[in-house]
Amino acid sequence: MAGNSFGKLFKLTTFGESHGEALGGIIDGCPSGIEIDFDAINLELQRRKPGQSKIVTQRKEEDQVHFYSGIFNGVTTGTPIGFLIFNTNQKSKDYDEIVNTYRPSHADYVYDQKYGFRDYRGGGRSSARETVSRVVAGAIAKQVISGIKINAFVSSVGEIFINKPYQDLDFNNIELNPVRCPDMETAAEMEKLITEVKKQGDTIGGTITCVIQNVPIGLGEPVFDKLHADLGKAMLSINAVKGFEYGSGFCGAKMRGSEHNDLYNPDGTTKSNLSGGIQGGISNGMDIYFRVAFKPVATLLQKQEVLTNKGEIIEQQGKGRHDPCVVPRAVPIVEAMAALVLADFSLFSKIYNK
Amino acid sequence: MAGNSFGKLFKLTTFGESHGEALGGIIDGCPSGIEIDFDAINLELQRRKPGQSKIVTQRKEEDQVHFYSGIFNGVTTGTPIGFLIFNTNQKSKDYDEIVNTYRPSHADYVYDQKYGFRDYRGGGRSSARETVSRVVAGAIAKQVISGIKINAFVSSVGEIFINKPYQDLDFNNIELNPVRCPDMETAAEMEKLITEVKKQGDTIGGTITCVIQNVPIGLGEPVFDKLHADLGKAMLSINAVKGFEYGSGFCGAKMRGSEHNDLYNPDGTTKSNLSGGIQGGISNGMDIYFRVAFKPVATLLQKQEVLTNKGEIIEQQGKGRHDPCVVPRAVPIVEAMAALVLADFSLFSKIYNK
Amino acid sequence: MAGNSFGKLFKLTTFGESHGEALGGIIDGCPSGIEIDFDAINLELQRRKPGQSKIVTQRKEEDQVHFYSGIFNGVTTGTPIGFLIFNTNQKSKDYDEIVNTYRPSHADYVYDQKYGFRDYRGGGRSSARETVSRVVAGAIAKQVISGIKINAFVSSVGEIFINKPYQDLDFNNIELNPVRCPDMETAAEMEKLITEVKKQGDTIGGTITCVIQNVPIGLGEPVFDKLHADLGKAMLSINAVKGFEYGSGFCGAKMRGSEHNDLYNPDGTTKSNLSGGIQGGISNGMDIYFRVAFKPVATLLQKQEVLTNKGEIIEQQGKGRHDPCVVPRAVPIVEAMAALVLADFSLFSKIYNK
Amino acid sequence: MAGNSFGKLFKLTTFGESHGEALGGIIDGCPSGIEIDFDAINLELQRRKPGQSKIVTQRKEEDQVHFYSGIFNGVTTGTPIGFLIFNTNQKSKDYDEIVNTYRPSHADYVYDQKYGFRDYRGGGRSSARETVSRVVAGAIAKQVISGIKINAFVSSVGEIFINKPYQDLDFNNIELNPVRCPDMETAAEMEKLITEVKKQGDTIGGTITCVIQNVPIGLGEPVFDKLHADLGKAMLSINAVKGFEYGSGFCGAKMRGSEHNDLYNPDGTTKSNLSGGIQGGISNGMDIYFRVAFKPVATLLQKQEVLTNKGEIIEQQGKGRHDPCVVPRAVPIVEAMAALVLADFSLFSKIYNK
Repeated sequence: MAGNSFGKLFKLTTFGESHGEALGGIIDGCPSGIEIDFDAINLELQRRKPGQSKIVTQRKEEDQVHFYSGIFNGVTTGTPIGFLIFNTNQKSKDYDEIVNTYRPSHADYVYDQKYGFRDYRGGGRSSARETVSRVVAGAIAKQVISGIKINAFVSSVGEIFINKPYQDLDFNNIELNPVRCPDMETAAEMEKLITEVKKQGDTIGGTITCVIQNVPIGLGEPVFDKLHADLGKAMLSINAVKGFEYGSGFCGAKMRGSEHNDLYNPDGTTKSNLSGGIQGGISNGMDIYFRVAFKPVATLLQKQEVLTNKGEIIEQQGKGRHDPCVVPRAVPIVEAMAALVLADFSLFSKIYNK
Repeated sequence: MAGNSFGKLFKLTTFGESHGEALGGIIDGCPSGIEIDFDAINLELQRRKPGQSKIVTQRKEEDQVHFYSGIFNGVTTGTPIGFLIFNTNQKSKDYDEIVNTYRPSHADYVYDQKYGFRDYRGGGRSSARETVSRVVAGAIAKQVISGIKINAFVSSVGEIFINKPYQDLDFNNIELNPVRCPDMETAAEMEKLITEVKKQGDTIGGTITCVIQNVPIGLGEPVFDKLHADLGKAMLSINAVKGFEYGSGFCGAKMRGSEHNDLYNPDGTTKSNLSGGIQGGISNGMDIYFRVAFKPVATLLQKQEVLTNKGEIIEQQGKGRHDPCVVPRAVPIVEAMAALVLADFSLFSKIYNK
Repeated sequence: MAGNSFGKLFKLTTFGESHGEALGGIIDGCPSGIEIDFDAINLELQRRKPGQSKIVTQRKEEDQVHFYSGIFNGVTTGTPIGFLIFNTNQKSKDYDEIVNTYRPSHADYVYDQKYGFRDYRGGGRSSARETVSRVVAGAIAKQVISGIKINAFVSSVGEIFINKPYQDLDFNNIELNPVRCPDMETAAEMEKLITEVKKQGDTIGGTITCVIQNVPIGLGEPVFDKLHADLGKAMLSINAVKGFEYGSGFCGAKMRGSEHNDLYNPDGTTKSNLSGGIQGGISNGMDIYFRVAFKPVATLLQKQEVLTNKGEIIEQQGKGRHDPCVVPRAVPIVEAMAALVLADFSLFSKIYNK
Repeated sequence: MAGNSFGKLFKLTTFGESHGEALGGIIDGCPSGIEIDFDAINLELQRRKPGQSKIVTQRKEEDQVHFYSGIFNGVTTGTPIGFLIFNTNQKSKDYDEIVNTYRPSHADYVYDQKYGFRDYRGGGRSSARETVSRVVAGAIAKQVISGIKINAFVSSVGEIFINKPYQDLDFNNIELNPVRCPDMETAAEMEKLITEVKKQGDTIGGTITCVIQNVPIGLGEPVFDKLHADLGKAMLSINAVKGFEYGSGFCGAKMRGSEHNDLYNPDGTTKSNLSGGIQGGISNGMDIYFRVAFKPVATLLQKQEVLTNKGEIIEQQGKGRHDPCVVPRAVPIVEAMAALVLADFSLFSKIYNK
């Protein structure tokens, strides 16, 4: 009930702070008989890992996952899957000076206010380090829904954006550049911008687009647990996310019904897909696509005003190893959360779908 | 577990189809001792009701709520509150011709595919008629969190939008025009546009902005049940919603950290509020504001291609009494869902907040 | 989350007080496509109804259920089933004198202490009247698990008990006597005892045995949601229940392993069944049987000491129309709750069982 | 949703198999600011640990718990508490011969049937080894409800039972003998019986009584989540449990209302306590007491018929290090589960109690 579980049938509960000894989680509700591809899990962890390229944080985290249960001879047993990722490169000393200060647009202040005190080291529980457990669980979820293809990619950084529909993009390019933007020219521009921003000790926001293909008809449990509502919650639960739209999204709010309606083909597919693959909260078999907005990282390598726990405003120089732009590393996290939602509704569909 | 409950501690479960005898719900988890203002509930129902003005549907629904339990001598007892809204003006005959057809961008097709058959009358469970129960529960939720002020309003219709920050608006104007737009001039333009669209038998989308004030610090249960994640899910669960953004939203994705960070005042308030009143998923005491995108209503009073359940494409003339633009009537629904989220986290805060 | 829901996938939420206008509930999670046998539901309500015979309360309650949703043309649609049972014969005046008094071994006192005040009429929410909603939902649950046979019966009243294994009983006899005891001779003795107790204005306890046959192998979700653990909770949630045992039960605690172990037949059935059809919390295909202890009804038609809300002890004469022995009418309630548990695990088994 | 979580607000989710590398769990919902007494946790683990005396299994398990999160500088932070207990003395080879056989009255057969295959080593997930995580969480729960005193003890082994009311017992004696029976003479008899049974390679059942004192009025969330219903489920979820009764229990089913009713004292306490401290599912401030029945351990050190997965009945000699009687080691488990239930309802009471 407290907020550290996600999903109902395919349910992930996570624990762990940025600078604790380990983070981890339990997946309860994974069906038995799934042969686990451990390389696929490691690959996702590699994609999320810091230090992959010049444009992301240079922290080194090994991010190796240890499974303790629920998998026997490489196959899921139907019992809960417990796993840990040990922290190996945490430099708590970097955070000594924020013991008594609240950094702007971080969760420092509200954690202290809510819980009475906080684990200040590296943001504690509020750190995006926590998403490492999501990536592990998402990688398993992907194997549960193996027919479905999920591709997320960076669609904008600052003012630079891909000016093409996703159908014109080659998803094979995503991993070919450090930005994870499938349009190689735009990717180069984005990389240049991030490098420039980084030099200034500043950070920059961006968006990620996610396309889900081969989705069976009938996923989603209205009226509250609509497929897109759970996808939205999943995305909004990721650190730094400020917005979510699917299908026509905010553009749809400017349109007329006569241009927005997706007319049918005789086989039940639709000629257009402004619905974004979901009608009435239920997948209709067309591509699902959505877009997620990420704010710029709050930690700057600049001098900035901070609040002390004595109510003083002082200047503090930002330190540590941080991402100038979070979206490249957030791509696997978006995919992981999407996979968790789809796995959950997939299990529901075994009961409720005819 | 199935998708018809919302909230954890202040929990609403709803039932009812568009053309059934009644719709209703149960609120489980409302604390005892709250003196219920029944007029306030009726007022919200009036705001949502069809037939209020020329620019909304002319259906007549009495929308009177009957409470059966949980309230004794006008005060909540701590036991579940069961309520019904009887349907009084349903014209099922209007729907005879959609028995065997699937209207574009409606849920007809996916309901049939998922459940094997459907209550086709007026969209059945997928109809926005279902939100009447949400408005009842939201009106009670508002009384549970009586210190908090929630104001939603129409911020755009089609291409017409309010070109002012919400701080410059007078919320008292919201109910003074049929569009529920607090900027009277913009409201007039919007009304004109809707009237025009209606004449064409067409429909148009729009956005609603919601501002929540006087929020105590500490609402939200990270890492999954972040305050904005639950607000997002709540909004995305409303019929026709395509997008959600809070604080800086999608604009924030274009900004740099140095312009986006909200610097503190000594009292813990912030000088700017691009965070939208939420940091790390927890309210920080500043105004919460978010924006919700609604697509244009799918039912047109025009000829349109539909799919039959035999896989034929035929032309069908749209009939019935429908809204040309859904946002004016969706304003109280947005407020209701926001109130449900806040009431839920309010109850959590009694346990977890210091 | 608050305590008025039961089940996870086949989920019942109930509302209603003894003397409110109506009681009712919502079943969320009932699969689509089930043709509802309304006569079967009414039959269960008849079995639970007061006034059936001389040995139960002479109150007259019509106990007719009204369905408002989730069933279309007699078939479940997969959407939530909302229902009401209107109260028609409540005599609130009977309860005027308990406004300010707490009857011994009733919930009057704790409700006042917990919630600050209470709906005192007829026990309010704490009345067994509430179980009417359980019986409706249980009757539908029985139709969801139509292959499984559930037979509950009165196995003891006071010191009188059936001295035979259930295998020697003819369940067809259960409804042939007012006690609902399948051993006709014992039934007659029980009836005589209840009549005698009633004459004295006193009440008496008893036990109900429930036998569940044709259970598929594999129901139950360990380690916490063991089949018998949920059956136990279900039974203990019924008013007046003091104990639950299954299989060998408390007798098993006196036995040695060498006599208690159920040896296998080659087909996986067992030669004995002290396990009660459940091993490790999962059904093994053998008969499930359990026993439930009910205390004597607390309302006596005698003078009794009561506590006033001013802390005085006064004498009060019990009034109203009450059961001298609750077990005959509790038989359908036990079956209903068992059906709810089995329906819930049945739905789980569609996901998790190979 | 799958069955490996217990509790709603103070929620434990566990993972781990008998012979995996580690077992563990996550407590989500523990309030912040609780100074953890680690010695108290270790003490509970010692009480549960094998090899404590001659009458329990001679397996050696270190049973040391490692906490990874949720506790900072010895104080709970309000974030989830993740913990592991590494397995150090597992002898998987002992189980080679049950790879293809199903032992009577074990879960081997149903696990294979349900999940398609199983981790056969030591019973896998169905082993009572899993309760080690419950004891850790229960020890923390005890600290959350520090005013409440929970004392469980062995009240019978086979036919030998304590023939005194609990009020006449000195709970300080519980830990003074290996049986954990506070009546020293009865304890000696029990010990003798267990020793004898053990010599024969047999096992024997028993009961545990649990007394909970200093309980505040108002714990419990009717109508389904009655305090005793959740206690019952908690107990029935423990391995080998066959029955649960509280207050007058099965004896109450033989009594008349006039002898069973607990008359009030002016201060709201009751003269007798056949209710067992709970009325209408809510604690009334009197002592809560209940009794739990445990069957004899199914693993015998004798020759026994087993079923092979080819449908043959063969004889197999029981091996390994097993308890001849489970109740002495189950005492801390009963207390742990009771503590979890009470902690959960304690958190609810912060919201719902006046």
